[in-house]
Amino acid sequence: MSPIKTQWSRLIRFVAAETSRVHIGEPVNAGLDVGLAALEGKPIKAYEIIGSALDPAASVSKNVLTVSKLLAPLSNEEIKVVRCLGLNYSDHAAEAKMAKPAFPILFYKPVTALVGPLGQVIIPRVSQPPKDILPDYEAELVIVIGKAAKDVPEDKALDYVLGYTGANDVSFRKHQLAVSQWGFSKSFDNTNPLGPCLVSNKIITDPQNVLLKCTVNGQVLQDGTTAEQIFSVRQTVAFLSQGTTLEPGSIILTGTPKGVGFVRKPPTFLKGGDKMSVWLGNGIGTLANDVIEEKPAGNLLSKL
Amino acid sequence: MSPIKTQWSRLIRFVAAETSRVHIGEPVNAGLDVGLAALEGKPIKAYEIIGSALDPAASVSKNVLTVSKLLAPLSNEEIKVVRCLGLNYSDHAAEAKMAKPAFPILFYKPVTALVGPLGQVIIPRVSQPPKDILPDYEAELVIVIGKAAKDVPEDKALDYVLGYTGANDVSFRKHQLAVSQWGFSKSFDNTNPLGPCLVSNKIITDPQNVLLKCTVNGQVLQDGTTAEQIFSVRQTVAFLSQGTTLEPGSIILTGTPKGVGFVRKPPTFLKGGDKMSVWLGNGIGTLANDVIEEKPAGNLLSKL
Repeated sequence: MSPIKTQWSRLIRFVAAETSRVHIGEPVNAGLDVGLAALEGKPIKAYEIIGSALDPAASVSKNVLTVSKLLAPLSNEEIKVVRCLGLNYSDHAAEAKMAKPAFPILFYKPVTALVGPLGQVIIPRVSQPPKDILPDYEAELVIVIGKAAKDVPEDKALDYVLGYTGANDVSFRKHQLAVSQWGFSKSFDNTNPLGPCLVSNKIITDPQNVLLKCTVNGQVLQDGTTAEQIFSVRQTVAFLSQGTTLEPGSIILTGTPKGVGFVRKPPTFLKGGDKMSVWLGNGIGTLANDVIEEKPAGNLLSKL
Repeated sequence: MSPIKTQWSRLIRFVAAETSRVHIGEPVNAGLDVGLAALEGKPIKAYEIIGSALDPAASVSKNVLTVSKLLAPLSNEEIKVVRCLGLNYSDHAAEAKMAKPAFPILFYKPVTALVGPLGQVIIPRVSQPPKDILPDYEAELVIVIGKAAKDVPEDKALDYVLGYTGANDVSFRKHQLAVSQWGFSKSFDNTNPLGPCLVSNKIITDPQNVLLKCTVNGQVLQDGTTAEQIFSVRQTVAFLSQGTTLEPGSIILTGTPKGVGFVRKPPTFLKGGDKMSVWLGNGIGTLANDVIEEKPAGNLLSKL
């Protein structure tokens, strides 16, 4: 085995102004934060990539396209499975006053929870008590699996990684803390921004050296590094592949550093109108997402 | 809204002896337990259904096919998302000495965990401590969603249900009890039998009156009824649809009744060579699965 080799270094997915269709491409400006540029309405040009993001043989063409809408770097159909780690940063475990886990804490969410780099994050109407659902941000590094991985040893684990992107694992603390499993509180539609760039393993050779930040309304609330991860990317891929096939295109959110809202004093939570952004270094870039609050519905459930 | 109407009453998916291809069909013998018949090598005939299981317009033809291999009633591509409830039976909560949950406890597993009605359930090699992973059975009623459901009220919830099938949510207790989230312990490849019949909502009009059993090596270990469910099917669909789209084809495993192995005195766990079967009434039928133990690999992970 050896690392997956791609022609592209940074991959984006977008609707092109020239065709009104979805394409994948390599940003012409290698240093550009495409998420920030899109937020600021600055032009983004990309060389069209011919083929699929998951096909290492995909080639970077000389055809230059203009981004009219920036999308998550993979479609939900390509991703299929979203794995997430909880409590995977030493500094976050410390602030939450939780013991470091003995092995990775894994949960899943459906792809319907994903939203694009500039999409709106929707606080759902959950009329069922607990009504106040306490939305919170979580900046995270995301592993994109490129080759089916099962029972892979730790020293070969990075050979199965196509690259890395960013996410904001927006979490609804009231429900998360009210029952043992996080399935309900982490999986609402359009609550998990993903992107903007998928950065190849040839650019990010050391995934334990990626900086990540979360900003809400201009205030930096998380400012961390993946060096603080309890389980490294290698360990995570090897551990999760035990008995379970990690399929190409599937993604793994690797947990969040310190600074989340619910452990602050006083606690802070997201609300409608907030401007939230997550930034990751090494060419991944910015996710900029407005928070929208759905109007509460009538009581959906009578008897609970 | 009104209930989804299908021509078929009980749907099976299978490889046909006549064509060597995958078909869906309606068993000719309306009273037959197709899982048990397949286990015993008895002939199963079915009227071919023309169309998709998820298309209510699918029609039952007069073409009779012979089942050569019985499959789960929906393909993994049709299912896409597997939701599961934990601790949803009063009698199971009591035996586990756990308080009844305030609202449904939801977790997800990937479709790669699913296996057919007569498939082998594979105890994976997990060399990482805790090495002894304590596999356990869980007979469950499964809701099959037929129409996209979001924010649906409880009194309309059954209108989104296509029908019901059975599952065995095989669980690996050592890992389940060692960390807070059940993602790792409930999601190994080929550990979750599904089927055999998808029974229409016109046959199962009251999902709180379905009997279910689990038998290991001929001994009945679970013998329950969905009347013991803490959250009814109506309540479950309504609750889970809050803020989250339940997509057509997605399934919800609704928890297990008392009698699981790990709370028995002494505890009992599955092992290689066990003959495990789960039976559900109202025409769903039997899942009969041999338990296979993978040989342990060398230590996958050095540093954890």
